[in-house]
Amino acid sequence: MSAPLNVGIVGTGIFARNKHLPTFQQHSDKFKPVACFNRTKSKADAFAVTAGIEESKVYADLDHLLQDDSVDVVDVMVPVQFNYETAKKSVEAGKPVILEKPIEANLEQAKKLVQLAESTELPVAIAENWLHLECVPIMKEKLAKIGPIAAFTYNSTGPFYPSSEYLATSWRKHPEHIGGFLSDGGVHQLALLTTLLGDIGSIAAFSNQLRKESGTNDIVFSSVKLRDSDVIGTFTYGSAFGATEKSVFLKVYGLNGSVTMNINARTCTTIKTMIGSTGEVEAEEETVEVKEQPFFGVEAEFENFYEAVSKKDKSIVKGSPRVAFHHLAIVAAFLESAAKEGTAIVVQQP
Amino acid sequence: MSAPLNVGIVGTGIFARNKHLPTFQQHSDKFKPVACFNRTKSKADAFAVTAGIEESKVYADLDHLLQDDSVDVVDVMVPVQFNYETAKKSVEAGKPVILEKPIEANLEQAKKLVQLAESTELPVAIAENWLHLECVPIMKEKLAKIGPIAAFTYNSTGPFYPSSEYLATSWRKHPEHIGGFLSDGGVHQLALLTTLLGDIGSIAAFSNQLRKESGTNDIVFSSVKLRDSDVIGTFTYGSAFGATEKSVFLKVYGLNGSVTMNINARTCTTIKTMIGSTGEVEAEEETVEVKEQPFFGVEAEFENFYEAVSKKDKSIVKGSPRVAFHHLAIVAAFLESAAKEGTAIVVQQP
Repeated sequence: MSAPLNVGIVGTGIFARNKHLPTFQQHSDKFKPVACFNRTKSKADAFAVTAGIEESKVYADLDHLLQDDSVDVVDVMVPVQFNYETAKKSVEAGKPVILEKPIEANLEQAKKLVQLAESTELPVAIAENWLHLECVPIMKEKLAKIGPIAAFTYNSTGPFYPSSEYLATSWRKHPEHIGGFLSDGGVHQLALLTTLLGDIGSIAAFSNQLRKESGTNDIVFSSVKLRDSDVIGTFTYGSAFGATEKSVFLKVYGLNGSVTMNINARTCTTIKTMIGSTGEVEAEEETVEVKEQPFFGVEAEFENFYEAVSKKDKSIVKGSPRVAFHHLAIVAAFLESAAKEGTAIVVQQP
Repeated sequence: MSAPLNVGIVGTGIFARNKHLPTFQQHSDKFKPVACFNRTKSKADAFAVTAGIEESKVYADLDHLLQDDSVDVVDVMVPVQFNYETAKKSVEAGKPVILEKPIEANLEQAKKLVQLAESTELPVAIAENWLHLECVPIMKEKLAKIGPIAAFTYNSTGPFYPSSEYLATSWRKHPEHIGGFLSDGGVHQLALLTTLLGDIGSIAAFSNQLRKESGTNDIVFSSVKLRDSDVIGTFTYGSAFGATEKSVFLKVYGLNGSVTMNINARTCTTIKTMIGSTGEVEAEEETVEVKEQPFFGVEAEFENFYEAVSKKDKSIVKGSPRVAFHHLAIVAAFLESAAKEGTAIVVQQP
């Protein structure tokens, strides 16, 4: 067995502490946190203690972390408007890099990140954990049975949580990235939807802000047409409502059946398949429960990154900047459409 | 108790035989079929036998039926492109009239019907039975508890039924009315949605034809903004898919809770209410089952018409042409938007 990758962690906030660090500890054969940097140094110090990082490797700036030869790969969890710059420096330092989603603060910056990734042989990954959910391959297998696919309804809604620790993050309260919470949570939904059904070609959306704490619009209701097929559908996202069940629901309609997916409390996914050409034949029905990983795909996301780095093959990366660009481009199209009274907008390509 | 209204039936097709006639028989204190007319006279003859209508009152044309002084009101179930002309003649003959939905074949004709209805004191009603569902008042009561309402998802989908007797109707196979099955079934959905939440101001829609038997587009996926509020949502309708559960589903999100409605196999409606301002307070939950009438509102629709006629008060009519115009105008907006690649369309007013 080869040695684990030594990870330099840039940005030691909530997600680093609660999700990435436990993932590294769980996969200690593959990852070892060896260095870190945070704008507020005291937070980095505290993180280093928890992570078992030597005091001397808590760096005062990014450049010094990147100059550390013991750092093999860089794990970046900074406000997304710093993603491109951080990735660029990492690549210049010859280090593969994984960056938290959304890809960047806006499409212009995101485009530069796509170009950067496509101009190097080093793996550059966007940490979009929903691409790595256990339900994805199972859904694909079921969807293949109901084709041709005609339409879908995607609905991810939930109540507002005023005490959410994410809500208190200053870069989320005063977002420099487009879409605010709509892109923060929305790109996850769009990653799942588009990895299952294909890229979105155009969308028409209405959007509103329900809670002042959201900083900007926090609900979107849209109609959608895919890019490379005649598939149409609706996409709904919002977690700013009064009491309602937290629900992630996808129903896909084919000419030979339908597949319904419910993600229940992020622990497992229920997939119900009905196969049959019309309502007049007896449908073949099947329901399966798919257990999701405790960190909801973060584990598989890092295994994927590990494989790409250790095999020196960037094509292995599922969450490439080009893929993640699409998710943010859809959010940008939502915002543009909503600003234009719901008229359909063609989703930008990088 | 006053005598029942004597009904002249114009158009003795499937719906007359299976729904209206049994409704009259069930409410024999209020309605008595006394005359009928059908383009194919043999069908009218057969209907008359079942309905107990005298042979001499099976008329060879509409004018003779309308000249019959024993006919108090006219019940019209003809291809909708004849609705305006039939209503006009009925009003000229001094007879209140109820006409099957959709209101007319297109908005121009529908507008004339609205004007006709608003230029007479006689009740002119569109038989939109979904306005009269038992769930409507209960839903309104629940919705009042979760306000202000922010958004909704309406999804009415089902499998294709190639042997449907309605599919075989020649005026449906070669529709002269806009929207084909989208308006035929869609106006029901839109009647329910808008009577609960208010009129729709603008929509953006994608639409396709999945089955050649449909004659025209048979599925629509749209995003919607209400006219007199900030409420946004999605509206989905289609009954042309492969195997899938027949489902009519409405979820309404408010700032103080949510209401979910499921119409199950058209026999009863399940309404689940959650009240609470955020996900952090314990929600007050309640689920009620509302039993629908056997003919799904047709009974109440005729009671409503009876009341308007017997009290000589047209304002009692729930399904006024102005109300029904809105439902068809939304379908027209769907078609226009879909033809323009999802451009948002303002819904026409009469």
